[in-house]
Amino acid sequence: METGAIRMFGVHGMGEVRPGDDLAGMIAGAVRASGERIRENDIFVIAQKAVSKAEGRIVQLDSVEPSAMARRWAEEYGKDARVVEVILRETRRVVRMDRGILIAETRHGFVCANAGVDNSNAPPGTVVLLPEDPDRSAELLRERLQAAFGGRLGVVVSDSFGRPWREGLTNVALGVAGIEPVVDCRGQKDDFGRNLQVTVIAVADELAGAAELVMGKNRKVPVAVIQGFSYKGEGSGRALVRAAELDLFR
Amino acid sequence: METGAIRMFGVHGMGEVRPGDDLAGMIAGAVRASGERIRENDIFVIAQKAVSKAEGRIVQLDSVEPSAMARRWAEEYGKDARVVEVILRETRRVVRMDRGILIAETRHGFVCANAGVDNSNAPPGTVVLLPEDPDRSAELLRERLQAAFGGRLGVVVSDSFGRPWREGLTNVALGVAGIEPVVDCRGQKDDFGRNLQVTVIAVADELAGAAELVMGKNRKVPVAVIQGFSYKGEGSGRALVRAAELDLFR
Repeated sequence: METGAIRMFGVHGMGEVRPGDDLAGMIAGAVRASGERIRENDIFVIAQKAVSKAEGRIVQLDSVEPSAMARRWAEEYGKDARVVEVILRETRRVVRMDRGILIAETRHGFVCANAGVDNSNAPPGTVVLLPEDPDRSAELLRERLQAAFGGRLGVVVSDSFGRPWREGLTNVALGVAGIEPVVDCRGQKDDFGRNLQVTVIAVADELAGAAELVMGKNRKVPVAVIQGFSYKGEGSGRALVRAAELDLFR
Repeated sequence: METGAIRMFGVHGMGEVRPGDDLAGMIAGAVRASGERIRENDIFVIAQKAVSKAEGRIVQLDSVEPSAMARRWAEEYGKDARVVEVILRETRRVVRMDRGILIAETRHGFVCANAGVDNSNAPPGTVVLLPEDPDRSAELLRERLQAAFGGRLGVVVSDSFGRPWREGLTNVALGVAGIEPVVDCRGQKDDFGRNLQVTVIAVADELAGAAELVMGKNRKVPVAVIQGFSYKGEGSGRALVRAAELDLFR
C-alpha cells in the first residue's frame, strides 16, 4: 500500500513485565482493552527491554565478580565494576573503549554501546541483557500474537542504538519475524530509466524508528502497532547486520 | 500526543521537479488534489533530491574537469572521473576511501557516501548536490507551506544515508525547521525512580525514516506528511551532527 497511509499507535497500560510473564498475552490484553482493532499484516514493534525481561535475561549484580579489567575501567570512569563485567561478558569484540564509552560487538554481531546491557528501567540491583536470539523471540511472539488475533502479522524486536557521526539514538530492529527487513531496489529503474544504484533500504530499522515516535521516551509504552504498511517475505534481523569483512568501520 | 496515534501519507502526483520550480507550491497543489487535509503541527518530510533540484543544485558533468586524483580513483573502480571530481569538491574531509567506496564529510559536517552527490533520478549528464544549507531550505519551505495552509507546521529535509555496522540505508534529517530534532530525556526518571541515562533521541531522524515508508523507494513520492506527532521547539539539523571531537569514529 505504497499509495496508502500508515497509522501507528502505542499499546498503553501493559504494566511492568517480569520474568516468565506471558508477554504476547499482555500485549493482546492491552490492545483489546484499548479498543483498537488489529488487522491482517499489522506490524507489532516490541521494545527489547520488555522481551528480555519476560525471557528472564536479567542479571543480579550481587552475583557478579568483576575481573581486573572491569575494575580498572570502572574505577577510571566512575562506573559500577559489576556492570562493566557483565558488559564484557556479553562482548565478542571491543570496537571502541575510550573516554568512558564502550562500543562492543555482541555475540549476535550487533555493534552498540555497552553490548546492549542496560540498567535503566531494570529492577534495582540488576541489569538487563539483550535477548539470546532476537529473531527467535520475534518469531515466538509472532506465533502467539497471530493465534491471539487470528491473522497474519509481522513482529520487530527493537532497541535504541547510537550511531557514529550523528547525535542521539534511534530505534533499530534486533529481531524480525514475517517481514523482509532489507528491501533491495537494485535493478529497478529511476525516473530517467537508469538502474537505481544504492537503493537497499533498511525497512525494519525504519519501522523500529517510526514506532519509537509513539512508544514514548521512558519505555512506559513498550509496544507499538504499525498499520497499512505494505511488505512481503520472511526475514531475519541478521540481514541488518553488516558482515565484518564488508564493514569499513570495524 | 504521545498517547495518540500517528498517521503518515505520501504526497503523490507532484511530477518532476526542475530548477527554479516553486516546490512549496507544487507540494501544496498535490496535497489539495489528494483530498488530504493539513492540520496544525503537521510535519512535512521532503526528500533532499527534490529540494536540491528546485534550488538548482545540479552540476552538468560536461563542464567538469577531473583532477588527477579523481581520474586515478575513477579508473581503479570503473567510475566516471567527472562524478568523482564533483564528489571531491563537495568533500571537506575524506573519512574512508576504500574498495570503491568514498565516505566523506561534507561542508555541512554530514558524513555520508559520495558527499551526498547522486546521479539517480538526476537528468542525464548531471549529478545532484546536497542543498547549500538544508536548515535554510527547510525554513523557507516551512514559511511557504505555513502560508499556503494557514497553520503552524514542521519541516524536515531528508536523505538516505548508510551507516557503519548495519546493512541498508535509512532516511535521516539533513535540515529541520520548527521541530526540536534531538529530544533529551536525561533528568527524567525511569519506572524505578532512577535517572534515565542515555536517552537523547534523534526524533528528526526517526521522523525522516518513518516518512520513507510512505515515500516509496524510487522517489516518485518525494514528500510525506506526518500527523499527530507531538513535538515542540525550534531546532536545527546541525544538532544531529556530532561534533568531530566527540566522535569516536572519525
